[in-house]
Amino acid sequence: MANIQDSAQQLEEAIRNSDEFQNLKQAYETVMADEVAKKMFEDFRNTQIELQEKQMQGQEITEEEIEKARKVVETVQQHDQISKLMEQEQNLNVLINDISKTITKPLEELYGAQEQ
Amino acid sequence: MANIQDSAQQLEEAIRNSDEFQNLKQAYETVMADEVAKKMFEDFRNTQIELQEKQMQGQEITEEEIEKARKVVETVQQHDQISKLMEQEQNLNVLINDISKTITKPLEELYGAQEQ
Ligand SMILES: [Ca+2]
Ligand SMILES: [Ca+2]
Repeated sequence: MANIQDSAQQLEEAIRNSDEFQNLKQAYETVMADEVAKKMFEDFRNTQIELQEKQMQGQEITEEEIEKARKVVETVQQHDQISKLMEQEQNLNVLINDISKTITKPLEELYGAQEQ
Repeated sequence: MANIQDSAQQLEEAIRNSDEFQNLKQAYETVMADEVAKKMFEDFRNTQIELQEKQMQGQEITEEEIEKARKVVETVQQHDQISKLMEQEQNLNVLINDISKTITKPLEELYGAQEQ
């Protein structure tokens, strides 16, 4: 019977060595090495975090803010290296979601079994 | 180099066999086998889900609803088997959070490294 912490570390190593992570790393480092792309990506991230925080705190988001966010998204989508990075982030998210579904299966089964 | 899906399945097996999961399973089944406890626990769960949904949708939560939720929590906390179940859920959450921290370390390192 494998130890949980050993299994988790083995999985971490497998993720680190995966194409998905290695491609993301390369795309991220490419963006970070370019001052203009870096600034553009950070603006995008900050705008997203700001809106998320407002939403979580139940604060109203103004038309102006929505318009600003829309423009920032449009700008980064037109930047080849950033849109490549966002694509790689999406790929890794899919991988992590699959893993998450696998390891929470025991809980799913327990809480699902006696629902009916 | 271990395969991701194999490693995830090994981790799932380790979680399933852990004391934390087995204790939770026992506590859950004990509550579900008792009609009164089962109903009480389900009321508690439904109240929580309802409030969470309202909060996520940015709907206002009334004083009355807060008071009702407070009473439901008080009631389940006084029920030995349910409070035991909630304790076991908390233990498993700690375990899952630790695992989650381990497997997202590559991402943490990547996105943290160039922040400064
Ligand atoms: Ca630079
Ligand atoms: Ca029954």
